[in-house]
Amino acid sequence: MTTYSLLILPGDGIGPEVMAEVRKVVGWFQTNRGLNFDVSEDLVGGAAYDKHGTPLADETMARAQAADAVLLGAVGGQKYDDLDFSVKPERGLLRLRKEMDLFANLRPAQCFDALADFSSLKREVVAGLDILIVRELTSGIYFGQPRGISEDHTPGNEGGRVGINTQRYTSGEIRRVARSAFELARKRGNRVCSMEKANVMESGILWREEVQWVHDNEYPDVELSHMYADNGAMQLVRNPRQFDVIVTDNLFGDILSDAAAMLTGSLGMLPSASLGAPMENGRPKALYEPVHGSAPDIAGQGLANPIACILSFAMCLRYSFGLGAEADMLEKAVETVLAQGVRTADLMGPEGGTPVSTGQMGDHIVAAL
Amino acid sequence: MTTYSLLILPGDGIGPEVMAEVRKVVGWFQTNRGLNFDVSEDLVGGAAYDKHGTPLADETMARAQAADAVLLGAVGGQKYDDLDFSVKPERGLLRLRKEMDLFANLRPAQCFDALADFSSLKREVVAGLDILIVRELTSGIYFGQPRGISEDHTPGNEGGRVGINTQRYTSGEIRRVARSAFELARKRGNRVCSMEKANVMESGILWREEVQWVHDNEYPDVELSHMYADNGAMQLVRNPRQFDVIVTDNLFGDILSDAAAMLTGSLGMLPSASLGAPMENGRPKALYEPVHGSAPDIAGQGLANPIACILSFAMCLRYSFGLGAEADMLEKAVETVLAQGVRTADLMGPEGGTPVSTGQMGDHIVAAL
Ligand SMILES: CC(C)[C@H](C(=O)O)[C@@H](O)C(=O)O
Ligand SMILES: CC(C)[C@H](C(=O)O)[C@@H](O)C(=O)O
Repeated sequence: MTTYSLLILPGDGIGPEVMAEVRKVVGWFQTNRGLNFDVSEDLVGGAAYDKHGTPLADETMARAQAADAVLLGAVGGQKYDDLDFSVKPERGLLRLRKEMDLFANLRPAQCFDALADFSSLKREVVAGLDILIVRELTSGIYFGQPRGISEDHTPGNEGGRVGINTQRYTSGEIRRVARSAFELARKRGNRVCSMEKANVMESGILWREEVQWVHDNEYPDVELSHMYADNGAMQLVRNPRQFDVIVTDNLFGDILSDAAAMLTGSLGMLPSASLGAPMENGRPKALYEPVHGSAPDIAGQGLANPIACILSFAMCLRYSFGLGAEADMLEKAVETVLAQGVRTADLMGPEGGTPVSTGQMGDHIVAAL
Repeated sequence: MTTYSLLILPGDGIGPEVMAEVRKVVGWFQTNRGLNFDVSEDLVGGAAYDKHGTPLADETMARAQAADAVLLGAVGGQKYDDLDFSVKPERGLLRLRKEMDLFANLRPAQCFDALADFSSLKREVVAGLDILIVRELTSGIYFGQPRGISEDHTPGNEGGRVGINTQRYTSGEIRRVARSAFELARKRGNRVCSMEKANVMESGILWREEVQWVHDNEYPDVELSHMYADNGAMQLVRNPRQFDVIVTDNLFGDILSDAAAMLTGSLGMLPSASLGAPMENGRPKALYEPVHGSAPDIAGQGLANPIACILSFAMCLRYSFGLGAEADMLEKAVETVLAQGVRTADLMGPEGGTPVSTGQMGDHIVAAL
């Protein structure tokens, strides 16, 4: 029987709490669907720094490389704000993304009908929203050289310093993430909108040309459009349902996907997948994590919503293990529980519902399975 | 009597139409308030390219440098999409910003009560919204070297090219725009939120440190907070009224200010000012332009809303000429006309109103003065 090895990295803040609920779900599939998971756990982010003095120990990195899939909770917290850049909790996550070469970050922004009223946008603008942002995750200004802060005593430079980062994209890096976007679009609405600032940045021109090249040569059946990223931000606010799949670079993707996530009003509900090239066994290198952060202010109080993390595991079933039916099942269970009015604190609106803790929400979902 | 020299650059698309209405307003102040404007006009963007083969002729640049203030309509259009990067309409605008050293771009995002229902956001989220985004405009990734597209035959780089842009900020560049933001905050809600990605970019760390330095040494009375730009995008969508003044870099400012503008639902209403250092006469170098673009699809049909451009002239009266009372007057006139239900096509909602053309809107505003 196939064994799926899962490395769980709960991380900081509410990470451990929400991950405990994922473990319940994993356990359910193990017991009731005969799936064989080999689960291990390790530290990342501030938690790893506290123990090892680094946000990701080399042994953890090696275990992540060897695992079939990594599930991550969240990293960061004010407690670590004054740490040196090189050991900040975020560096652990960035190292995972880079060394596992997880170039395609899938961020669905979906508005759950039961929760549409939580959006700051009008119901008629967001109800039924279901877009997928594919963000390049291993290159661009996040990783380009040269970078750093140095002295700069040019006359007139009050303060005497300069800070530099480099946006660098190769044609190959752009093509591979474009292919991911086109592949995904074919399974959805068959439309891709690519966003950059080709009117201002040469790296944006290259982006546009290479996405167009992949389209013309390999995916002429998919509808492709291009949009400047600032207009993209506007259009996401104005009428997000005009989009199907959006493909964009690391930095624009960071900002636009967060804006898109907030449009839905369901931040505590949104999962993500970061995928790399296929391994020998045919599975892509993969890391799954909720879109929300570590929320240290509510950590340890049973207030966190575990659904984003549980839906990240659903993505793992689908994209890493090809278990689409099981993923559907889990997503259905979440919908059922929401329809029953079961609500963690963040989902409690004026229309009421049954208030539950993080742990109770996990139990309800397992029960619905 | 003081003469104020104004250089008008209508540009492309709806630029000339909306600028014609500004001229009516300028004329009114000339006739009725004894203000002496020396108005001249020139080409920028695609219009300049069509005539001179460059989006900004050197003589136009010289006239802009010599003027007390520049009023710009809009640049760009699909017609110019295939032009070489170096002569695209946008390059004309970027050259003006850079050579006039207009480092502080002021973008108010205001929700006009009469128009709150045009927002895709709920009325209770945006009604009364009045925030000011101060965007650095002459540095960062828009202008940093090295930049460009070149060949790159590293093994594995399918396509064989690489695109590079450089984000480069000096401490002095950050401090001067931070000062603008703190000064403006003192005249408003006295709060500044600075946005960057200090968790990922060293230039963001420098940004955060220098803004903090200016605060601690020169503006300790102003409340300062810091936020990651991705969270900033989320917070703008979730609850934009939490902000007073936002200060951020050129690229984040481009995206966040467009998102903020769209929140208001009043895109056709939003002006902007781009200010540089004081000239010999004490006035800052300055360029004023609407936030909206050139909208070539509706150009020449009397459908454009001239208010954003007219309110940009109000900013000119206030910031370039110290004519705060006159600026107030003009802003009041716009409010009066809106309250009367006078509406250009973009402002026509289900509740009706008196439909007017671009020219009629200008006439109504002049009448209300
Ligand atoms: C935590 C941080 C480094 C990260 C990023 O900027 O990519 C986060 O914002 C995200 O989007 O996953
Ligand atoms: C037209 C373009 C070059 C410009 C920019 O990117 O700055 C525009 O989007 C703006 O915000 O003024």
